[in-house]
Formats: sequence, C-alpha cells, structure tokens
Amino acid sequence: MVKIAVDMMGGDDAPGIVLEAVQQAVNDFEDLEIILFGDESQYTLNHPRITFRPTSEMITMEDEPVRAIKRKKDSSMVRMAEAVKNGEAQGCVSAGNTGALMSAGLFVVGRLPGVARPALVVTLPTVSGKGVVFLDVGANADAKAEHLYQNAILGHVYAKKLRGIEQPRVALLNIGTETQKGNSLTKAAFKQMDGSQQFNFVGNIEAKMIMEDEADVIVTDGFTGNMILKNLEGVAKSFGKIIKHDLLSSMKNKLAALMMKKDIKGIAKQLDYSEYGGSVLLGLDGVVVKAHGSSSAKAFYSAIRQAKVACETQIVENMRELVGEQSE
Amino acid sequence: MVKIAVDMMGGDDAPGIVLEAVQQAVNDFEDLEIILFGDESQYTLNHPRITFRPTSEMITMEDEPVRAIKRKKDSSMVRMAEAVKNGEAQGCVSAGNTGALMSAGLFVVGRLPGVARPALVVTLPTVSGKGVVFLDVGANADAKAEHLYQNAILGHVYAKKLRGIEQPRVALLNIGTETQKGNSLTKAAFKQMDGSQQFNFVGNIEAKMIMEDEADVIVTDGFTGNMILKNLEGVAKSFGKIIKHDLLSSMKNKLAALMMKKDIKGIAKQLDYSEYGGSVLLGLDGVVVKAHGSSSAKAFYSAIRQAKVACETQIVENMRELVGEQSE
Repeated sequence: MVKIAVDMMGGDDAPGIVLEAVQQAVNDFEDLEIILFGDESQYTLNHPRITFRPTSEMITMEDEPVRAIKRKKDSSMVRMAEAVKNGEAQGCVSAGNTGALMSAGLFVVGRLPGVARPALVVTLPTVSGKGVVFLDVGANADAKAEHLYQNAILGHVYAKKLRGIEQPRVALLNIGTETQKGNSLTKAAFKQMDGSQQFNFVGNIEAKMIMEDEADVIVTDGFTGNMILKNLEGVAKSFGKIIKHDLLSSMKNKLAALMMKKDIKGIAKQLDYSEYGGSVLLGLDGVVVKAHGSSSAKAFYSAIRQAKVACETQIVENMRELVGEQSE
Repeated sequence: MVKIAVDMMGGDDAPGIVLEAVQQAVNDFEDLEIILFGDESQYTLNHPRITFRPTSEMITMEDEPVRAIKRKKDSSMVRMAEAVKNGEAQGCVSAGNTGALMSAGLFVVGRLPGVARPALVVTLPTVSGKGVVFLDVGANADAKAEHLYQNAILGHVYAKKLRGIEQPRVALLNIGTETQKGNSLTKAAFKQMDGSQQFNFVGNIEAKMIMEDEADVIVTDGFTGNMILKNLEGVAKSFGKIIKHDLLSSMKNKLAALMMKKDIKGIAKQLDYSEYGGSVLLGLDGVVVKAHGSSSAKAFYSAIRQAKVACETQIVENMRELVGEQSE
C-alpha cells in the first residue's frame, strides 16, 4: 500500500480537477491510499481509501512563498507537507504555487542530508518517444558548479530508478560540445563532472540536441532549465499558430489541414510541458510532486501516479545513499 | 556607393557559396562595391565593382580564436577586418569561425567608445511574420547587469535604424514576468533598465512569448541567448521528425503528409536560425556581420544585404551617439 497526501486547493481549476483525478486514481490502483487536504464544503468524494482532512487556509498564486508557508499553518499545502514529514504519507502532490511548494519541501519536509539545493525535474519528450530526464527547471536560479554536480547525481538516480535505465548517460547542457566551452558556471561544472565515478558523464550537450535521444539525463541550472522549458512550451504553441496560418493561406492544403488538425494538436501537446504530468522536487526527505498550475484532471492523475511510482521505487532512499557517498 | 569587405574563405561551403552570393549581390545592387579577400587560385569572378585581394592564410573552425587573429596576419578574415578598420570598407561579412570573427571585431575593428562588451544580434521569426530583435546570442557568456543594459541600447538602435520601428519595445528575457523574478543577473538588470530614458523598457518577458510579438527587442546574456537560439533550431528539426513519424504512422494522413511536406519544411526553415541570414556584432566601430557557418549562397547573400543596410542606416554612428550618452 502506498499513501499519498494531496493538496485539494492548488491549481487553476481546483478542487474540481483534483477530486476527479483522485477518484480515478483510487479506482485504478488498488494499492493506493489518498489523504486529501482542503476545504470541507467543497469535498464531494466517498471512498474507503480516501481520507479527508479539513483545512481552514489556502495558499494562492499571489502569496509570497516563504511567508505563506511560515504563516498559513492550516493551509492545505502545509498540512499536506506535514503528512509526509511525520510519516503519515510517503509522498505528496500539489498543483499550487510552485515557490510555496518548494518552500514547503525545504522547510516542512526537509532536505536529504548532504543536499545543498533541491532540484525540479521533468521528463521531456524526445524524437524516439523515450524521453529525457531534465533538471533543474526552476528550483535554484543562481546555481554553483557543485549544485550542478549534485543535480547530476539526483538525475542519475531518478533515471535509473523511475525510468529503469541501467546506466543513464548524463550530459551537461552547454553552448558548445567542446570541453572548454560555456560560461564560468558550466566550465567549472564540466571539470567536476568529468571522470566522476558516481554517474556516467558523457560530456556537454547543446540545446538543439535535447530531443534527439543523445542523453538520458540533461543537467542545467534552474534559470536556464526554466528558460528551455518555457521556450519549448512557447515554440509548440507558436509553431501551431504558424502552421495554421501557413496552411490556411494555401488553398490546396485546406483539405490536408483539416485532416491533420488533430495530429498537429497532439504533437503540440507532446512539446507542451504542462502535459508531461508533474515535476518532482528532488533532494528532499520525501516525495514531493508539483503538478502544473493549469493541470487537467488527466495531468493531475499522471502526477499522482508519478508520486506513487517514486514511492514504490524508493527514490528517496536511493538518493540518500548516493548523495551521502558524495558528501563523505 | 557602399563598400563591403568579404571573407571568401569562411564557412563550410566556401568559397563556392561566397562567390555565388557576391556575384548576385553586385548584380542586384548597383550602389554596392565588394572587396573580396581569399585564395587567388580559387577566385573566379570578374566584375567592375568587385576588387580581389589575394591572401595567403586561412582561419579554420578549429583555430583558437584570439591566437588565430593575432598570428594569421595574412588570413582572409584579418585582412577583411583591417579593410573596415582603415576605412577602405564600411562593413564586412564572414561565415568563418565565430569566435575568431568576434576577436577580429574586438582587436582589429575595435569597440565603440563606452561599449564594455559587444553583442551578437539576430532577428527571430514571430507569429505575425514581423520578427523580433534578439541579443546577445553568444558574444558574452558571462554577462553583468550593465552589459545587459548596454545590450538594450544596442538593440534599441538596431530595431529603430535597421528595422524602422519608431519606439521599439525593449523587454528583458526572464523566468517570470513579475518584477522580482529571475536570477541575480536579471534582477539587477531589471532595476537598471526600469525607468530608463534611453529606451522604451516594457519589463520581463518569458521564453514562451518570444515569438508572440509582445516586444520588438529582447535582451539577454550570451549564454542564455545562445541556448535559446540553438533550442529553436533543435525544436524545428525535432518537430519536423516527430511530425513525419506521427503522420506516416497514420494511414489516412499519408496523402495529407505528401501535400504538406513542402509547407512543413518551409515552417521548419522559419525556425532554423541558419536561415535568418547573418547576425550582426554590435558595439564595434564598424559593421561586422557573421553569416552562419553552414550558409547557402542565398543566406550569404542576405548577410551581405544586411551589412549594406547597416552601413546605409549609419547604425554605428547612431550607436556611438547613444552609448556615449550613457557613459557620460
């Protein structure tokens, strides 16, 4: 049995999509228990494997993250994180304020010993359909070389345990493939990663190769990672618009456009990070999954499943071991 | 009459594509003179407005930039840059080693007084087809806030003079639109740009909005800019592959795929930065245009035209004025 704590109040379409996703998840997985935190008046479910815990406060998208976590003690997000901290649940999922969830991870759940900075990880789509583990996408915007090194370890464990890749190829995102390329941060990080015994470092990778299946894990700082993620999202949407515009302007292709409309939408979705399910906050002493703020019920369901798998594969225990090795 | 110096030996397909582009350019523009630098045995043109200057050395893609510029004094690239320095030509174009061309710009052509770091600028495609000025895409990987501020001035002048936008909207590329978002670099740059009298600062812009026509100039550091540029290039190619794969796997769409094949290729080209023509190295005391290493004759021709327009609109003189204002 896996127990997941869920924030009922986070996200643009909460609690509707959260309730729908939770219901679906307990229906599909017989070994899943959910503890749901939120406003009692909006709670509508009834299931033997769902426990409801009423909370009186809510953290909004406008709240200043650290202050919100420290002050709104009876918010659904803080109470959810506490459930992980005190061992009641093995993991948790929220679609709420990203900064606040990171703060809840840091100050309520707590870091793993030896982890300087947690990292947000996503799996990006690749041409083969296999996907690539990509971190950090926004937890640590001012990273140092040792943080990138630690991200490599966290990504290595994530790819190995959650994605079942025996010897994941770990690459450093950079502006050239040559050893001496980059800014001062990536140059220093390259030196630390090169020849590491803790993961299989395959060198620098350029942003144009991210989706080309040349690595299983791509490591970067939270500023650059967030840029890339949002750029992918933007390109998908803009690309769709350009396709639509170019196609509709050519008479002979109107038929083709109609026939392909659904396909193009599907492809744009592949590139839209809001559809990847959740991003996992790695380096914490518990499983914390961030579902996208504009999650649909389906996306939130994926995030719950992701948290469940992370718990089952003991990702936290595995990271504790490897990060410990490093800090010794 | 505009005189442009051209490096005949730079680029993957030199001198073939260079010769073809130069021939086309002098045919099309009656007020254009070209001074061509390169290996005499490969020179094949004959035109009253083309002057040929034989050179005995060549800078390759493998050369270390600064050393190459300092040692290969009779290379086509160094001689080309000298022609700008000594006033023989108003501008120059090369598809050779980017780092070497930047060094030639710095050490041969020289910086404008008051410019701390030159910046590489490109025009990215946008949904409307209007395009957006984007800099720095790789000249200065370790930028400080004051460099970003200067990039904003350079981009402002470029958009105004070369693109004819009266009051260009200048935005700072960042990981959130809110004032306090970003890493330490963008936070500091925001403070300097906010309320500037030298350009029309419209605040932060996220990477997902780059192609959405919300700004006329987008400013970033050379590391992030290069990342975004390569990511766009990669997405265009990977997207093409995914479309192809997805379409061919669905029977009913094979016809549609055939009909659209050409359109998709055209759209991918719009996103492929190698097709945007050249990138201009701004902040120098002369017009220096970098054509992409894998330029076709058409792309190199665009780069020559770009250099010509930059000379005609007196972009260097305009920048000298505004940058001077700043450093007073």
